[in-house]
Amino acid sequence: MTDGPVRQASLREHNLGLVLRHAANAARPPSRADIAAATSLTRATVSALVDDLIAGGLLTEVEPAPRAGAGRPAAGLVLSASGPAGLGLEINVDYLAACVVDLAGTVRHRDVRHADQRPGRPDEVLAEVARLAADAHAHAAREGLVVAGAALAVPGLVTPDGVVRLAPNLGWRDVDVPAGVASGLAGSGELALSVDNEANLAALGELHAGPAGPASFLYVSGEIGIGAGIVLHGALFRGARGWSGELGHVAVRPDGPACRCGARGCLEQYAGQEAILRAASAGDTDDLKARAESGDPATLSALTAAGEALGVAVAGVVNLLDVEAVVLGGIYAPLAPWICPAVVAQIHCRVLTDAWSPVDVRPSVLGGDAAVVGAAGSVVRAIRNHPARWLTRPVS
Amino acid sequence: MTDGPVRQASLREHNLGLVLRHAANAARPPSRADIAAATSLTRATVSALVDDLIAGGLLTEVEPAPRAGAGRPAAGLVLSASGPAGLGLEINVDYLAACVVDLAGTVRHRDVRHADQRPGRPDEVLAEVARLAADAHAHAAREGLVVAGAALAVPGLVTPDGVVRLAPNLGWRDVDVPAGVASGLAGSGELALSVDNEANLAALGELHAGPAGPASFLYVSGEIGIGAGIVLHGALFRGARGWSGELGHVAVRPDGPACRCGARGCLEQYAGQEAILRAASAGDTDDLKARAESGDPATLSALTAAGEALGVAVAGVVNLLDVEAVVLGGIYAPLAPWICPAVVAQIHCRVLTDAWSPVDVRPSVLGGDAAVVGAAGSVVRAIRNHPARWLTRPVS
Repeated sequence: MTDGPVRQASLREHNLGLVLRHAANAARPPSRADIAAATSLTRATVSALVDDLIAGGLLTEVEPAPRAGAGRPAAGLVLSASGPAGLGLEINVDYLAACVVDLAGTVRHRDVRHADQRPGRPDEVLAEVARLAADAHAHAAREGLVVAGAALAVPGLVTPDGVVRLAPNLGWRDVDVPAGVASGLAGSGELALSVDNEANLAALGELHAGPAGPASFLYVSGEIGIGAGIVLHGALFRGARGWSGELGHVAVRPDGPACRCGARGCLEQYAGQEAILRAASAGDTDDLKARAESGDPATLSALTAAGEALGVAVAGVVNLLDVEAVVLGGIYAPLAPWICPAVVAQIHCRVLTDAWSPVDVRPSVLGGDAAVVGAAGSVVRAIRNHPARWLTRPVS
Repeated sequence: MTDGPVRQASLREHNLGLVLRHAANAARPPSRADIAAATSLTRATVSALVDDLIAGGLLTEVEPAPRAGAGRPAAGLVLSASGPAGLGLEINVDYLAACVVDLAGTVRHRDVRHADQRPGRPDEVLAEVARLAADAHAHAAREGLVVAGAALAVPGLVTPDGVVRLAPNLGWRDVDVPAGVASGLAGSGELALSVDNEANLAALGELHAGPAGPASFLYVSGEIGIGAGIVLHGALFRGARGWSGELGHVAVRPDGPACRCGARGCLEQYAGQEAILRAASAGDTDDLKARAESGDPATLSALTAAGEALGVAVAGVVNLLDVEAVVLGGIYAPLAPWICPAVVAQIHCRVLTDAWSPVDVRPSVLGGDAAVVGAAGSVVRAIRNHPARWLTRPVS
């Protein structure tokens, strides 16, 4: 083998991705000529690539909008809603979730099962995740979708090969998640599964959700635990060894209440879901939101106190990292009207550069389930970035 | 003009830097053949480049060490100690400093003038800095050194063109530092001056001080104010808008004592120089160190309390950024024996990954004056990275 053919193949791979992503990100369905103009590829090259992408089920043609001028308008190209889909899974402390996102980015299926996961052994929880995955798979099949792969979000520290080193709120240590899910799926087929921290997957989802997001932001995931995904200069920052983002264990008051991690006064003890529900005497977050909407004073004061503690920690992050935005996810997304003002006030008070360098504090674009949607989105993004792998897959 | 000559010139520029940096970083003075082997350049190319660098005063030949084997050993190449030098300057709250670092990296001159800078107007302080610079310049000239440029470290937020937007402990806002220094130097020549945050310059100095440093670390500068330089994956992280590293204004206790920044309970109020001196009833840091060495209980308890507060804030940074090391600079460097243990204890207690992902806490390699030495070093590094600019300078 010489260098020539290999380089030709990788060039084609690159260009396939270029065409696909242009179709994905364009404001309206582009024609082949539009893509050629935007990518500087020749029209003949673009046409050949587009033909391959249509044949492979990744692109599809849509009728052009009628035009006033002369001549027949060209067909527009969009990502195929029946193309390969991504399966998102999430284990959290008090729920499991699954969703299917199609290649065009639409959430086609969503399944959340509320139940405290702490009493179960990890293998039992992973077997339930496998059942959730099989159900989502079956649902996708009924809609004519092929699931290309799955990503699982967990509230803990995950190695690159999917072992949960530590998930304090679940009480997990050194749990081999892919093996557990695979044994739960035994007999019902295989699934390419990646595992990542839930705040990281949500932050990545947020980064890609809109075309005009800020390049550096802190994504905060409020659940029973509190995690963060740190996006710096447009890329997820995972830390020197992969353990970044443990915002929930930043101290708010060093001598405060004991935390499950063994330290005292961690943010989770002030702004975690259980602390808020306890302070507001609410049953769950829906109940909490209803009470806040009705103006219940205890609820409003619990949310303000949580927002203040969160704001103290977040202001520290802004002082350190000078991020442009703070995105509130998890339960903070639906509760943002009551949490945001206290966070903003702490930033105004504590961030040295606040007067001339404002920070945007806003709820997650993907909403409260950003992690599971972000997980499914990560599978879809991998196909958009490397469509050649999908086009050349062995036919089963 | 065609592309050809330009590309040749930039290739030569690149190779000059390659040769110079290899000589700077090699364990022992390399021969031309050693450099050719290490850089994959031909021996003829290396020889021509080395000749130019010697002629330009950047490299010099040293006698080879005697060898047991046959044949005359080749001469070794080192960076010229009489080559262009860097002038480092520092404004801090209670002192001004200057130093000259030669091209080989040796500190050749050091001048620290202790005096509270807060009573002075910015233009008065900058005039004094200009006098310090002129003195250092004269000292360098007496040693036969040409000062290639200067960098000034300030304890505040600095724009890329050298305006101090805010230095809370100095009480400065929007001070045009290069203009102030230039007017102070009026009549005594010009000086290419860059201005940067003192913790950033110290962190960069620390990054380049040794060959085997960690790729991601937090440099903490303890002075009257507390700043930080954040090195991630081997590069200084300046933040989205250039305002990163304000560790001194991370809250330790949200309702603690009022800070000069307007907030309450900032780290500076617990671990800043003035808080420590007050708690230990010490006159200055030399006095403080002497009392600590003599085992004075009030001093030891003041240093432990400062270390605990610093440790709470630093543990938060490690939880967030997963850095491999924490480097203590400024007054924390000489006080490290008494400050470090409490910082380490807080990291053990508060960092979620501490059990399997240890963090090295150590004093700055460059010592207590890392900022001013780092400033001078930044000038020298610029020459090492772009020697062609120096070789082609107009002869004055």
